[in-house]
Amino acid sequence: MSDLCPRFENAMEIISKRWVGLILFELLEGTKRFSEMEADLPISGRLLSDRLKLLEQKEIIERNIYSEFPVRIEYSLSEKGKALEPVIQEIQHWADDWVSMEDIDESKV
Amino acid sequence: MSDLCPRFENAMEIISKRWVGLILFELLEGTKRFSEMEADLPISGRLLSDRLKLLEQKEIIERNIYSEFPVRIEYSLSEKGKALEPVIQEIQHWADDWVSMEDIDESKV
Repeated sequence: MSDLCPRFENAMEIISKRWVGLILFELLEGTKRFSEMEADLPISGRLLSDRLKLLEQKEIIERNIYSEFPVRIEYSLSEKGKALEPVIQEIQHWADDWVSMEDIDESKV
Repeated sequence: MSDLCPRFENAMEIISKRWVGLILFELLEGTKRFSEMEADLPISGRLLSDRLKLLEQKEIIERNIYSEFPVRIEYSLSEKGKALEPVIQEIQHWADDWVSMEDIDESKV
């Protein structure tokens, strides 16, 4: 099976990386500055920076630097990243239908 | 944001667990015996067993024991698990469209 669907496996490897889903969810709202994402997401700046680098390397996000003072750096989804919207939407649908507040409390224990 | 979408985060936590995607992909084909899955998937029996227990606990799969000799144990998706089909399909679509064989070779390095 691993040989039958290396593409699926590769996609899962990216999406399944912890926090990548939430970062994509965040960027589907639109272009964001690093500081905005840092404020919105429950992770450290260092971890966020690490994930953004990974997603940039995978060509899922784009990093734009504006030479203002102070310099402005913005992140947005590339075409490849925007194409993940149906994936994120379907996960959200499933979560709305099937994840209960009890499930969430349980996994916090 | 963590507070805004705890359901999404909880869903991602399950789906993003390594090998869960491939196990779901496998069970979408239909009911399977442990030995069939072990043969199809590139993971150890111990790891497979661990993931199946997790998915059973999350009520995503069902485990049926048939009192034959030798005893037959089969796994299948529950309604909650079957509802993940659109998620898996969208990941497959994205992978077909956007993951190249070069990407796969790169991630193997």
